[in-house]
Amino acid sequence: MSFDHEDVEKGCVAMKKLLDDPAEAVVDALRGFALAHAGEIEVRRDPTYVLRAGGPAAGRVALVSGGGSGHEPLHVGFVGAGMLDAAVPGEMFTSPTPDQVAAAVQAVDGGAGVLAVVKNYTGDVLNFETGLELAQDSGVQVASVLVDDDVAVEDSQFTAGRRGVAGTLAVEKIAGAAAARGDSLGAVAQIAQRVVSRVRTMGVALTACTVPHVGRPSFDLPEDEVEIGIGIHGEPGRHRQAVGSAREITAALVEPVLEDLAPSGGERVLLLVNGMGGTPQSELYVVYGRARELLEARGLEVARSLVGSYVTSLEMQGVSVSVLVLDDELAELWDAPVRTPALTW
Amino acid sequence: MSFDHEDVEKGCVAMKKLLDDPAEAVVDALRGFALAHAGEIEVRRDPTYVLRAGGPAAGRVALVSGGGSGHEPLHVGFVGAGMLDAAVPGEMFTSPTPDQVAAAVQAVDGGAGVLAVVKNYTGDVLNFETGLELAQDSGVQVASVLVDDDVAVEDSQFTAGRRGVAGTLAVEKIAGAAAARGDSLGAVAQIAQRVVSRVRTMGVALTACTVPHVGRPSFDLPEDEVEIGIGIHGEPGRHRQAVGSAREITAALVEPVLEDLAPSGGERVLLLVNGMGGTPQSELYVVYGRARELLEARGLEVARSLVGSYVTSLEMQGVSVSVLVLDDELAELWDAPVRTPALTW
Repeated sequence: MSFDHEDVEKGCVAMKKLLDDPAEAVVDALRGFALAHAGEIEVRRDPTYVLRAGGPAAGRVALVSGGGSGHEPLHVGFVGAGMLDAAVPGEMFTSPTPDQVAAAVQAVDGGAGVLAVVKNYTGDVLNFETGLELAQDSGVQVASVLVDDDVAVEDSQFTAGRRGVAGTLAVEKIAGAAAARGDSLGAVAQIAQRVVSRVRTMGVALTACTVPHVGRPSFDLPEDEVEIGIGIHGEPGRHRQAVGSAREITAALVEPVLEDLAPSGGERVLLLVNGMGGTPQSELYVVYGRARELLEARGLEVARSLVGSYVTSLEMQGVSVSVLVLDDELAELWDAPVRTPALTW
Repeated sequence: MSFDHEDVEKGCVAMKKLLDDPAEAVVDALRGFALAHAGEIEVRRDPTYVLRAGGPAAGRVALVSGGGSGHEPLHVGFVGAGMLDAAVPGEMFTSPTPDQVAAAVQAVDGGAGVLAVVKNYTGDVLNFETGLELAQDSGVQVASVLVDDDVAVEDSQFTAGRRGVAGTLAVEKIAGAAAARGDSLGAVAQIAQRVVSRVRTMGVALTACTVPHVGRPSFDLPEDEVEIGIGIHGEPGRHRQAVGSAREITAALVEPVLEDLAPSGGERVLLLVNGMGGTPQSELYVVYGRARELLEARGLEVARSLVGSYVTSLEMQGVSVSVLVLDDELAELWDAPVRTPALTW
């Protein structure tokens, strides 16, 4: 996906952002990120990617992900022990290029192969495919898994099929733990695929966001409406409705998720309540409480929880709710130690 | 401090928040928080406070803080091993009551006394003072330290003297580590005071925020201006200026901080770049990079860093920059393990 630069200089409304050159927003942020986390991660340029400090781990499967920037901490904040070996950031809301993917994959391969976690957007899918082929040609054993957890819509702006959204965090955490314990490439890919098959997400936007090099909000949303089923780039969702209560909004997210997951009851689940970037933490916990009530009313046991702004859309106000049906192994891998800039336990 | 309820029901502009009853926003968020972090923290009601699970640690000094809600994760997200033993949340942007303070202090005392970390707002100071007296009357040994790191203004709405803002995080982390290693009450208080004397902060708002039970933005800021020196409740700062670049805005924050700290050069510092709640992470890292350049140009070594939204003002867009002049002991205490909902290493 990519955005139009033509309106950058119009500036009819002052864009309120902490930026220098909007066209350099990603590079400037990565420079700060590299300095703040020196010793934990490294940022390579030409082509750009982020990798764990210390070089590839011989004999261990490596995990790579990436996508458009503007969703931080996804993916660069998840590089570290127990999660990603490298992340490939594109420009804002724009897919990374094949050469970035190939360079990152080659850099982290320790001889046991590399699994790529790809969110289902057409540009990401094509560019990861080409990048993985390039890496494969250079002798790296590769595999990939496609994340498409968003139940809101089939097909969308930038996407054929369902979009990959906050469930990606669970895929990266759990597959990273499987790689860390020494699973083979095939086994790590299978675990990742099992997470994909068991996680579903739906989000809501209260406000739009502004891509720096575009300079105007990515969509219009009336003062008294929210968009249910929003994509993480502001792609259209299912419908708009009056703002309403947290209880109503949460139900509008949880019900489609449960309808799609169709749990039989009694299952243990991970509940991830994810802020879109501009939502106060207190509101995320209100939604968490409501979502939990709804899941428990359906006979599900909320056995693991994560609440925070992890898969964001710049300054968008909104939230997504993800539910992952756990089994013993997935719970164990979720609990395994992780040490990254954005997620540590 | 407290806010006026009169406009709650006017609703001239729909308040876009994920809430049920605005008057119950704090209680609803704490209910979710308690469920999401069961086993790590407990939320007690009547009066309300949050404490570490597992009860008081016999013979160890306990650390308590608190203040108005709406600044999360401060303080409730910092309850846990190596940081706070309890946090006392008031209503949104409203001081906690003396009985909350007294109950929390009594609950966490393990016989070695309790240090209260208090941000310098008149209501907080008075209510903590009264609460600590009540606890003392019941036999608890108490001490307190006042945080006033904001260099923006002397005296302000709600404050005589300087305001306590993001530097509070450093006080709580470092004093928590001193308590964890077994320091006496006097020694923990001295360490906390040393942090207060060496940390300075200044913030900027790009947008205002809306307190749920008030229902309208806490101040007006033109579309093309930012407010330099903003307080964490939207209290006036030093001046307004055109949006400008990250480089300009960061300089307008770092220069007053350095002027006040007056480092001689060569010192090692902690650089904390703190989001106000609605700022994308990428922008925080841009500011971090610029702040680091300015500090290094002054001959300072940025030896420790933290970048994230830790001391927030609901959905306000903005950032604050804090600089703490380290010494070997403060660096060691900063590095010591911490395990809380919002900060873990």
